[in-house]
Amino acid sequence: MTKTNIYIYIISDSVGETAAKIAQASIAQYLNVNITLVRRTFITEKDELLRALKDADDHDAIVIHTLTSDQFVHIANEYCGEHNLFCMDLMSPIMNEIYRRSGEQPSRVAGALHSLNQNYFNRINAMEFAVKYDDGKDPKGFLEADIVLLGVSRTSKTPLSLFLANKNLKVANLPLVPQAHIPKQLWEVDPKKIVGLTNDPIILNKIRQERMKAYGLDPNTSYSNLDKIQEELEFANDLYRQLGCIVINVADLSIEETAAIILKELKLEDRSYYA
Amino acid sequence: MTKTNIYIYIISDSVGETAAKIAQASIAQYLNVNITLVRRTFITEKDELLRALKDADDHDAIVIHTLTSDQFVHIANEYCGEHNLFCMDLMSPIMNEIYRRSGEQPSRVAGALHSLNQNYFNRINAMEFAVKYDDGKDPKGFLEADIVLLGVSRTSKTPLSLFLANKNLKVANLPLVPQAHIPKQLWEVDPKKIVGLTNDPIILNKIRQERMKAYGLDPNTSYSNLDKIQEELEFANDLYRQLGCIVINVADLSIEETAAIILKELKLEDRSYYA
Repeated sequence: MTKTNIYIYIISDSVGETAAKIAQASIAQYLNVNITLVRRTFITEKDELLRALKDADDHDAIVIHTLTSDQFVHIANEYCGEHNLFCMDLMSPIMNEIYRRSGEQPSRVAGALHSLNQNYFNRINAMEFAVKYDDGKDPKGFLEADIVLLGVSRTSKTPLSLFLANKNLKVANLPLVPQAHIPKQLWEVDPKKIVGLTNDPIILNKIRQERMKAYGLDPNTSYSNLDKIQEELEFANDLYRQLGCIVINVADLSIEETAAIILKELKLEDRSYYA
Repeated sequence: MTKTNIYIYIISDSVGETAAKIAQASIAQYLNVNITLVRRTFITEKDELLRALKDADDHDAIVIHTLTSDQFVHIANEYCGEHNLFCMDLMSPIMNEIYRRSGEQPSRVAGALHSLNQNYFNRINAMEFAVKYDDGKDPKGFLEADIVLLGVSRTSKTPLSLFLANKNLKVANLPLVPQAHIPKQLWEVDPKKIVGLTNDPIILNKIRQERMKAYGLDPNTSYSNLDKIQEELEFANDLYRQLGCIVINVADLSIEETAAIILKELKLEDRSYYA
């Protein structure tokens, strides 16, 4: 760990989520550097903005801002220029370029990304849908879903469903257990909407042993038995072949990565926006 | 709607989530401009990168890239410079500045933000926790949760729980109905972890009428009755006072905004990172 302590100030008139993401992506590249992230969000008054900038200056911080009002952007950029503060203005460059090309004025509404429009309510519905139709709770969900996820235990079905729901997609999932009853509705779903999740047997074995330990149980139960896992995976793969759906091995993938692959493969990228 | 059609190309060696967020925040400012978002993600080969850049050039696109390899950043920035393409490099400025200050080399691992570390698995657990302890399903969850959300019907408890779970926080929620049994565990929870959600009666009335209509039912049932709603809200507010928890009126707030307020008030911002 180096001695340097670096401050990054997120300054925003809204949630500051976008700026935080950039900061976090950068921090993830420097695991040995001490970095303190400070958020000054929902700034609506000029005084508040100046106070945040002054604090950032006191810490010789890296400033990342997402400000939508012309005046606030101007104040922040001027202040950082005068005080020799490193400043990244995330909103203006793209906004100005769109303005230059279209001649349209931006709405300059802070947090426009989070406005309570139809898209927003669809997303909320998608999240409630994911909880309602998680874990094969109700097979009727398959017919209404944008995506149906299938997979044996510990292939991230639930977190993946929730992550995709947050992107405005209705997801139902079904855990696969050999000899389990496969609901008839599944055969009525367009295979292009179905995703079969699979994993490496060795990894599943390890994950399941850990899980048993966490429960204070014997790690070598049939749940974590390698032959048993192999059998489950074969059952799942057979079903995927019969259904004709895509198959993704989640072994080395985070849910963000798996989600991105699903959106690409199912051609749902365009429907996956927040706003 | 203006005739201009503007292309924004997201080019990334990982999910491209950060760049997409910037693009979407900008698009949200220009509702009357036709903007097409194209994603070229998980780029690992130089050829792929050059193809994506060529396509962007063919569409005279605005390019936003998150690339971590030195070589790819260099290729992208050079190409855009030579072809006079508008280009926003999101990763390099902050990464270079951290390097300048710390003297440390970045790991240059693509998708480092999504690495499968302990933090990642904690987040997956948090998502499963949210589903398990949604809707007061099991009061034991209250004692283990980082945040306990309380609220009458239609105050966004479920989506809010899921959104916060995605930020690595364990959330349990309890719907409030007058005269309902309040689980004894709730009184054992530190009030600083509890959030009481409330809403404006008129808005709740409207939301609930819509919900009844969506179900094909009479919109003027007792569920949407204004006196009934008032009574429910009073019951909830009384409970919040007794518990001594913070209260948030979600009337004009998106879940992102409510979540940001909760993190600020409960001083959980520092724990809410992805990586």
